[in-house]
Amino acid sequence: MDNLTLTGVIPPMITPFTRDGAADFDAHAANVKRWNEAGLRGYLVLGSNSEAVYLNEREKLHLIEQTRENAGPGHLILAGTGMESTRETIHLTKEAARAGAHAALIITPSFYQEQMKDEAQARHFLAIADAAPIPVLMYNVTKYTGINLSPRAVGRLSRHPNIIGMKDSSGSIPQLVQYQQATAGENFTILVGTASAWYPALTLGVDGAVMALANCAPRECVRVQQLFGQGQKKDAEELYRRLFPVNQAVTATYGIAGLKYACTLRGYQGGFVRSPLPELNEQQKAEVKEILEEAGLLG
Amino acid sequence: MDNLTLTGVIPPMITPFTRDGAADFDAHAANVKRWNEAGLRGYLVLGSNSEAVYLNEREKLHLIEQTRENAGPGHLILAGTGMESTRETIHLTKEAARAGAHAALIITPSFYQEQMKDEAQARHFLAIADAAPIPVLMYNVTKYTGINLSPRAVGRLSRHPNIIGMKDSSGSIPQLVQYQQATAGENFTILVGTASAWYPALTLGVDGAVMALANCAPRECVRVQQLFGQGQKKDAEELYRRLFPVNQAVTATYGIAGLKYACTLRGYQGGFVRSPLPELNEQQKAEVKEILEEAGLLG
Amino acid sequence: MDNLTLTGVIPPMITPFTRDGAADFDAHAANVKRWNEAGLRGYLVLGSNSEAVYLNEREKLHLIEQTRENAGPGHLILAGTGMESTRETIHLTKEAARAGAHAALIITPSFYQEQMKDEAQARHFLAIADAAPIPVLMYNVTKYTGINLSPRAVGRLSRHPNIIGMKDSSGSIPQLVQYQQATAGENFTILVGTASAWYPALTLGVDGAVMALANCAPRECVRVQQLFGQGQKKDAEELYRRLFPVNQAVTATYGIAGLKYACTLRGYQGGFVRSPLPELNEQQKAEVKEILEEAGLLG
Amino acid sequence: MDNLTLTGVIPPMITPFTRDGAADFDAHAANVKRWNEAGLRGYLVLGSNSEAVYLNEREKLHLIEQTRENAGPGHLILAGTGMESTRETIHLTKEAARAGAHAALIITPSFYQEQMKDEAQARHFLAIADAAPIPVLMYNVTKYTGINLSPRAVGRLSRHPNIIGMKDSSGSIPQLVQYQQATAGENFTILVGTASAWYPALTLGVDGAVMALANCAPRECVRVQQLFGQGQKKDAEELYRRLFPVNQAVTATYGIAGLKYACTLRGYQGGFVRSPLPELNEQQKAEVKEILEEAGLLG
Repeated sequence: MDNLTLTGVIPPMITPFTRDGAADFDAHAANVKRWNEAGLRGYLVLGSNSEAVYLNEREKLHLIEQTRENAGPGHLILAGTGMESTRETIHLTKEAARAGAHAALIITPSFYQEQMKDEAQARHFLAIADAAPIPVLMYNVTKYTGINLSPRAVGRLSRHPNIIGMKDSSGSIPQLVQYQQATAGENFTILVGTASAWYPALTLGVDGAVMALANCAPRECVRVQQLFGQGQKKDAEELYRRLFPVNQAVTATYGIAGLKYACTLRGYQGGFVRSPLPELNEQQKAEVKEILEEAGLLG
Repeated sequence: MDNLTLTGVIPPMITPFTRDGAADFDAHAANVKRWNEAGLRGYLVLGSNSEAVYLNEREKLHLIEQTRENAGPGHLILAGTGMESTRETIHLTKEAARAGAHAALIITPSFYQEQMKDEAQARHFLAIADAAPIPVLMYNVTKYTGINLSPRAVGRLSRHPNIIGMKDSSGSIPQLVQYQQATAGENFTILVGTASAWYPALTLGVDGAVMALANCAPRECVRVQQLFGQGQKKDAEELYRRLFPVNQAVTATYGIAGLKYACTLRGYQGGFVRSPLPELNEQQKAEVKEILEEAGLLG
Repeated sequence: MDNLTLTGVIPPMITPFTRDGAADFDAHAANVKRWNEAGLRGYLVLGSNSEAVYLNEREKLHLIEQTRENAGPGHLILAGTGMESTRETIHLTKEAARAGAHAALIITPSFYQEQMKDEAQARHFLAIADAAPIPVLMYNVTKYTGINLSPRAVGRLSRHPNIIGMKDSSGSIPQLVQYQQATAGENFTILVGTASAWYPALTLGVDGAVMALANCAPRECVRVQQLFGQGQKKDAEELYRRLFPVNQAVTATYGIAGLKYACTLRGYQGGFVRSPLPELNEQQKAEVKEILEEAGLLG
Repeated sequence: MDNLTLTGVIPPMITPFTRDGAADFDAHAANVKRWNEAGLRGYLVLGSNSEAVYLNEREKLHLIEQTRENAGPGHLILAGTGMESTRETIHLTKEAARAGAHAALIITPSFYQEQMKDEAQARHFLAIADAAPIPVLMYNVTKYTGINLSPRAVGRLSRHPNIIGMKDSSGSIPQLVQYQQATAGENFTILVGTASAWYPALTLGVDGAVMALANCAPRECVRVQQLFGQGQKKDAEELYRRLFPVNQAVTATYGIAGLKYACTLRGYQGGFVRSPLPELNEQQKAEVKEILEEAGLLG
């Protein structure tokens, strides 16, 4: 893919599992086909919402291949290929490229927290960017990793020609501005990583997003940006606010099981989560349904 | 004061101390007189940036009185009267009202963290709101307290007729939206508590702010809002971005000593901090000066 | 008092309040008289368990005076005189000395967390130690302050002739050993700050303790040390283990309200807590009672 | 192996890497042969100190096989087989058993922190214990995972016949006592997970340990227990205190690179760490060497 412009909405795709925990590749293919109609910029395979940490390498590569096969024309395919070690990350990134990924989204390593400061992160990302056959984006997601890339480190890394952007899921708009200032002048795109910050991010000139909500409400997420781009800012803000409680439900409150159930309610094949993630109970399912109804996403 | 509308910019005023640690009331009066010219909505006495936790009751009340005496016409006077106990908070709030405060800003109690959940916070604020002779605002400042008021709790408390708003210094724009949704329909104002979120907050309809930066750059903080209100959003955003590094310097990086030094550089009487807060060394002073220069705030 | 040896058990005394929140000085006096019979080393007035952050200065000094008047001969009186500012701490320490305290226990200041590193703490404690008319102990209680004094800082501060020890409530035995190694050779006593570490601390040569459990089970806490000192280590350990669930209940699980209720059950005048601390409900009271019964502390 | 008694000292073995990051299996074999002479109870392959998160499955299984081949008679072989998903953990545990592991040490899953509460942990461990062909131990290491297994959960899990113990690296002696009380009466062994708690743990009846220090000072770690068992408690405590600064160095201060360098200094083949873990610089190497010298571990 020649055009790696990162404008638009990208869902970090859920991975449907069968009741007994097998990856349901057919369900995945069906979901991709359906998402193809929604005006999305592309797909993220193997993100946090994909339960990527629960997948083995064979499953990971097969998901990339299947996404590539089923994605509509012009859809960008990002793959989450970050592992704890630099070595394994490079290995998986190469395999992912072979399987069809256009770019790699690399999470900050975090297991040895105390030693994973900016300098170690920089060494990691620079080595990967040097070795990767496809462009690299950094993935800052403090709630899962306990790590926060400093604006200074991001600024430094943005100067590597093969590091083309980052996904920031910290949720901090002030830090988003700092990232913008630290990378000004570089060929570097900041993607907002949560729908809860989508409209504020647009007002600050961020025009790409990778966000869980785009799994179950892809058209609506895209629509916020369209309205904003057409100068209908009030309408964009209103839609953003209407989606807000749904986003809370499918991320913070009910997690991935909630997101998958919301997908199922909206006609996608959500499937089951893998253990040890908990499934929703009936009470929780009713709550998710009600929240979607209130937002006008059902019926 | 009949008009408690909370639109506009309010500095959480620094408290100047002499070299030996005495409160410098004359310097404070001089600062107020100078701020009177800046188009501010009013003043917060005894905020976090006022080193309020370092002041005794006599000093606190004298600062309120002096602010009242020197404030320009129409300036609203908020006083930070929150103490760890409900009883002492009510006492101080009554004294503050007597001394001239128009409304009280009450920080969440936090010493016994594990037990200061929403329910305890609600009991605290409701008892104070019942007893206070002046309106009450809640103050959510997680970085100092470790406490975060949930949107649900804020929604419940917003229904008390004497709780008229809150200052949110969490820095989270997504949470700001949740607070808005939880308090929709109530006579309740959300004030953004940091200049790093000022422009994004304006785009979301927040039009009041209590922010440290307004001590040393009051006109500029006011100007962001004016430009925004006049539809010059690009200019508002640009000014916000220009001020951003200054705000980082006088809050996160250099703390109150940095804020006071920036005030001094801009013609206010910053004075000294009280121990155990550290003063800036010469190197740090030079850095603050350079940051102000780069933002065009000097000379 | 010439003899400031800090061997033995000291309760951080609860402060009984009446139903309407007034300090019940008579109840306090009655408690002290009863504790006098228990073999304690002395008393801590104005500790964390005393709800000291909820007391005004007049109440604080009156509690010290009353403790002095009612304490049995040879009982050491410590007073918690730490405030956020160095200045107010020195003031209160002088007043406490006048009111009869033999030594002051000074909590680490913590409001401006990011700036309260070792260096600021050292400046604070050294200035206080210089100015205080009575000896000073440091109080490290991370769960309330978020601050942890490093062994290196404690080692440095232990060399000041008027800093005679510390109370460590971090609960970390490994860190206790580091404190011992950092202060070896100094005239400096480490007091363990929680009954959950009492027996392990004794095995490491710590022979003083300031612990909440000593409010409601003073003889038993003293007995652990006596048995240990007489070489009956098995019996000491057994008693320690028997008390362990009670300690969990009156600290971690039910907090100060639980501690006060346990005191009431054992014949002391526990009284009420001050708002916003929550009182126990009937269910919780029944649980505390059962835990005391199981430990053989009732009837 | 019929005898799975978990008394004694077990090193969580370092994994030596070559300069270019390949696993150095020969160096590993040489280390095992040398450790065979030290009186250890056995070996942990694939622990935190083994950089297990940096190894692929092939490397993991080969390390187990090699340990099995080179371990002296009677040495117990534990393998760290915990993965984020229950499914992958079961898979790896079965493979590890085939490769020669006698028991599996399973770390708490932690990526989706908010949802990895006690209930999810219990579901995970029970499913693994049901499916595993070898006995299972739980691994609680909050500093890496952010997860702390509650004593209540451990008590419940200890009743499963195939869950035979846990390694607790929380460092909290009070919690160790709670674990003991929660599992009393079960066939369940608590292993202390850090040398900084070794002597205090022995005084509380804990007689097994898996600790990093045993890589570079195996005989000394064993000796602490021997002295204690022979009633020479003063000598045991003294040796423990002498080793304490070394343990701090090879864990908290310098991490795995420090541990590996200490191993090299003591005649083992420490090798390199894998990226992104940082290597020691020359200054840090000199510091580690000095700490070992002061503890009498060199020359």
